[in-house]
Amino acid sequence: MAESEISHTHPYVPTDLNLPDFVPGFLSQSTIIGVYGVSSLLVVSLIWILSGRAFKISKTDRLLMCWWAFTGLTHIILEGYFAFSPEFYKEKTACYLAEVWKEYSKGDSRYAARDAGVVAVEGLTAVLEGPACLLAVYAIATRKSYSYILQLAISLGQLYGTAVYFITSYLEGDNFAASPYYYYAYYVAANASWVVIPSLIVIRCWKKICAAFQVQVQKKSKIR
Amino acid sequence: MAESEISHTHPYVPTDLNLPDFVPGFLSQSTIIGVYGVSSLLVVSLIWILSGRAFKISKTDRLLMCWWAFTGLTHIILEGYFAFSPEFYKEKTACYLAEVWKEYSKGDSRYAARDAGVVAVEGLTAVLEGPACLLAVYAIATRKSYSYILQLAISLGQLYGTAVYFITSYLEGDNFAASPYYYYAYYVAANASWVVIPSLIVIRCWKKICAAFQVQVQKKSKIR
Repeated sequence: MAESEISHTHPYVPTDLNLPDFVPGFLSQSTIIGVYGVSSLLVVSLIWILSGRAFKISKTDRLLMCWWAFTGLTHIILEGYFAFSPEFYKEKTACYLAEVWKEYSKGDSRYAARDAGVVAVEGLTAVLEGPACLLAVYAIATRKSYSYILQLAISLGQLYGTAVYFITSYLEGDNFAASPYYYYAYYVAANASWVVIPSLIVIRCWKKICAAFQVQVQKKSKIR
Repeated sequence: MAESEISHTHPYVPTDLNLPDFVPGFLSQSTIIGVYGVSSLLVVSLIWILSGRAFKISKTDRLLMCWWAFTGLTHIILEGYFAFSPEFYKEKTACYLAEVWKEYSKGDSRYAARDAGVVAVEGLTAVLEGPACLLAVYAIATRKSYSYILQLAISLGQLYGTAVYFITSYLEGDNFAASPYYYYAYYVAANASWVVIPSLIVIRCWKKICAAFQVQVQKKSKIR
């Protein structure tokens, strides 16, 4: 009886997950997603407008700048908060960042449980990839010679991180979602962008870099 | 008393790690390391000799071909065996590959314990990076335009994997070595090559790719 009471003080699965001093979330799902959506839309709009005015940049590059700004800020702010807040689930106020992870843990309770694989991946993403994403916005805008290689490096990191994230869950039994709805909405759908978009960027950068080497080879053979 | 007997049937730390049907290793440490060293030396010598005869390749590129062949075969054979052999510690014969991991687990018992983070990283390394390393040997030999980008992609993957490997251990308490000797010899020293060499390759490839884009920009500006 006492054990059953302890195990049901949180909404996560597995229900026997021990989260002492857990405080339930204060904000509704629509508020949490709404704030993230509106903030992201603001960032993307700002980058789109500025990149259209200040430089002669192709539409593809402007879209990529929007993506890098969005994903970079997500990595630094949301994932950075998680990586360094082991006790977010005890947060007693409606702190937005804690609310995000209290809500997301319904799709993957390993966040609340502080799974080492999840924390390692989120830490690397927040500390290394986040700032690198913002550098990519700058690199595209100023046409740096390292622009494609930087975008490829970050995208490979995102794909590797997502792969570790899904594989460790599979190996640990894939039973961390509070319901099939949270499984598909949070664990699958919310992560899908970080599989599809980095894959497209890797393919694009790979082709651009190979093309640059073919130009270099042609130039060398002309010199000879 | 009974519990104490169970917990001491293996040489790993933590001693309460439960490994039912554990069978101790048959080969000595020097035999295990000797076989790996001699095999690696054979592979490296073969690649060095062949690359010196068949093509006009720089010494740096020949050294890199040796590295890619060595690390690729290590990934595919040693790490591939581990990734798909969850019960290697029960192996009743002196199977060399099982012996390697029985021995290495003295430096990091998460291998015997089948830690999800370790298995995820080793699986990705064996399945994706291993074959990619052998492709890199071919790409360098045949001067493919994707040679540098491939080497950079694999090296970043190795660095990311090694980072997840060390960070997860740190987060889980960093207490998986049977003694300080095994900690430094296996966990630290044996993994150090996969930090130092990929870092050097990333720096080299990054510079080469940036240089190729600078050539491309010069060429374009001349056309204009």
